[in-house]
Amino acid sequence: MTTVGILGGGQLARMMALAGAPLGLRFLVMDTAADACAGQFAPLLVGDYRDESALAEFASKVDVATFDFENVPAESAEWLASRVPVFPNPRALAMAQDRLVEKSLFRDLGIPVGAFADVGSLDALRIEVDRLGGACILKTRRLGYDGKGQFRIKSPADVEAAWQALGAQAGTVGLIVEAFIPFERELSVVAVRGRDGEFRTWPLTENWHVDGVLSASLAPAHVDAALAQAAYAHARRLAESLDYVGVFALELFYRGGELLANEMAPRVHNSGHWTIEGAETSQFQNHLRAVLGLPLGETRALGHACMLNWIGEMPDAASVLQEAGGHWHDYGKEPRAGRKVGHATLRAEDAVALAHALARVGVALGRQAQVAPVVARLTA
Amino acid sequence: MTTVGILGGGQLARMMALAGAPLGLRFLVMDTAADACAGQFAPLLVGDYRDESALAEFASKVDVATFDFENVPAESAEWLASRVPVFPNPRALAMAQDRLVEKSLFRDLGIPVGAFADVGSLDALRIEVDRLGGACILKTRRLGYDGKGQFRIKSPADVEAAWQALGAQAGTVGLIVEAFIPFERELSVVAVRGRDGEFRTWPLTENWHVDGVLSASLAPAHVDAALAQAAYAHARRLAESLDYVGVFALELFYRGGELLANEMAPRVHNSGHWTIEGAETSQFQNHLRAVLGLPLGETRALGHACMLNWIGEMPDAASVLQEAGGHWHDYGKEPRAGRKVGHATLRAEDAVALAHALARVGVALGRQAQVAPVVARLTA
Repeated sequence: MTTVGILGGGQLARMMALAGAPLGLRFLVMDTAADACAGQFAPLLVGDYRDESALAEFASKVDVATFDFENVPAESAEWLASRVPVFPNPRALAMAQDRLVEKSLFRDLGIPVGAFADVGSLDALRIEVDRLGGACILKTRRLGYDGKGQFRIKSPADVEAAWQALGAQAGTVGLIVEAFIPFERELSVVAVRGRDGEFRTWPLTENWHVDGVLSASLAPAHVDAALAQAAYAHARRLAESLDYVGVFALELFYRGGELLANEMAPRVHNSGHWTIEGAETSQFQNHLRAVLGLPLGETRALGHACMLNWIGEMPDAASVLQEAGGHWHDYGKEPRAGRKVGHATLRAEDAVALAHALARVGVALGRQAQVAPVVARLTA
Repeated sequence: MTTVGILGGGQLARMMALAGAPLGLRFLVMDTAADACAGQFAPLLVGDYRDESALAEFASKVDVATFDFENVPAESAEWLASRVPVFPNPRALAMAQDRLVEKSLFRDLGIPVGAFADVGSLDALRIEVDRLGGACILKTRRLGYDGKGQFRIKSPADVEAAWQALGAQAGTVGLIVEAFIPFERELSVVAVRGRDGEFRTWPLTENWHVDGVLSASLAPAHVDAALAQAAYAHARRLAESLDYVGVFALELFYRGGELLANEMAPRVHNSGHWTIEGAETSQFQNHLRAVLGLPLGETRALGHACMLNWIGEMPDAASVLQEAGGHWHDYGKEPRAGRKVGHATLRAEDAVALAHALARVGVALGRQAQVAPVVARLTA
């Protein structure tokens, strides 16, 4: 009997436990919150990731550890890795926690990336914003996610306001300024690498964000095969350079026929949720197969799938459940503004059928704006 | 938040909880065994189904109740149904618990069934065996499953031995003698009926048993469409007559172009496990949708699927996991002779590809005999 420990007990840990049960695995989830939603289907250890005694208890009860959350302190991951196998390795985690280190790695690996600079002062920010052409985003180097810890600079006139918003964090988590990319599309590669180096990707996914939070994903993305191949090659180079084991996502911008890497998430990813029903093997099961050294499962798509995120509160399930390829995912969380509480996946054999299903669900739930860009892409 | 109570905590309850989590459901499983395998992923209440205080605790904690096990005492189901909604209804459960009542119902509904008779004494058995032509099976009316509580009578000379084996149960669970059906195939309809009467079936499944225990299932079965339609009509008539809510299986024999009903299982069924990966919606999720009054999911097959049961102990997973459409289900049980400990499902877009995958797995696991009849059917 193998017990997999998961640091972080949110919906990713929850879906991982559900996907891992058929492999005969047991789970132990550690989270700071007693009501972490993975705890509804797996034993939960409540504790702080920096608390060595809690970590020691966790380590003593698991055979291998992984993450549902990339902001586990690197020292905690290192400490744990000295006691039990930890996948992905703490180096990959540390890299992904720091936007400056991450973008530098992309550049070093020859993965195209937009211009960026480390900034430690208001003066440095002014200089870099001028150099980058005026339109930028100031971001915290660490601990940002879902659009948090970011300030959009539309012109040099916004520099003061940006510094007021985030400058205080220059000496703590650090700041990075990035050239604003007026992208045409947002894409992501969800990929998995095994302990033996076997590498697979799911079909490229197109994503739409609202206020910095993922709203919808479509897979396979409607892009040229050559573009998808380039994206897979970038993901592979990144994974191999980090000796990465498990699932990760590489987010990319598409502009003028080219791809630019945005960021890497060292875990199963919201833009891969469609794989539960839309692919032969889900990202959750393949992450576990990788972590355990089992053969990786086939990642091909079963038709066309669109995932819709539910933020804040769950809508009524009926309109999705009555669609032939409609699947519902309620994470068992309390409603809260801005919180990811669930998602739906619609799947169909062909793109037009998927567009029709999305349009029906959009009308039924009064969420036409959420489905509209996906419907437009499918029917273009 | 809705909590579904499940009486019985085996693999069916386990797979039901895993399938129900995405609907935002919570579960409470009740079983007599503290190590019931559903307890690894859902809260477990250990207690006897006849213990009113345990049942009262169970009833107080759930919003609706269902079964993973049909031999829950009918009185317990009735008692429970007076406190919380119970699906399927106790009448359906009671019917399916008694082979005589069940076969009589089939006959009354015009569902073809082999000859049978109630027997209360050795003399009565002699008379009925002669009347039925000699080749018969003596079975307990109640509490039989997986070939237990059965004695094969090949000729009138076996009557004494049959009575010695089972006669003592004539006064307790009762006995029924059935004409032996020299069937060509065993088939099952797995079907679901909603609270509102909506009725759906998954594609007809062909099954192979070894020593009375299911060994392999193939879906869709390779039979005429008209035959499948007849089977679906029988299942529908049965469900409507019982005002059945939830998933059930109707097992049928096929001989000389005709179907004969064998038995009905008032629950999700081993011959429907292939639906987890092989159908748009699994039997487990549709059972819960039915029980909760939610829209039923699409039951169409996604290609061709074969389920292989693992009895006694789990084989090595690698040969299945490395198949493109290979899926593994380890129930987390201790090995024990004759025990269903897991299954695998192989899925493919076409029948020949499925046959090849099965043949490879059969060789890798030294289980050529288990896969051979399925491969033969697929390549006929």
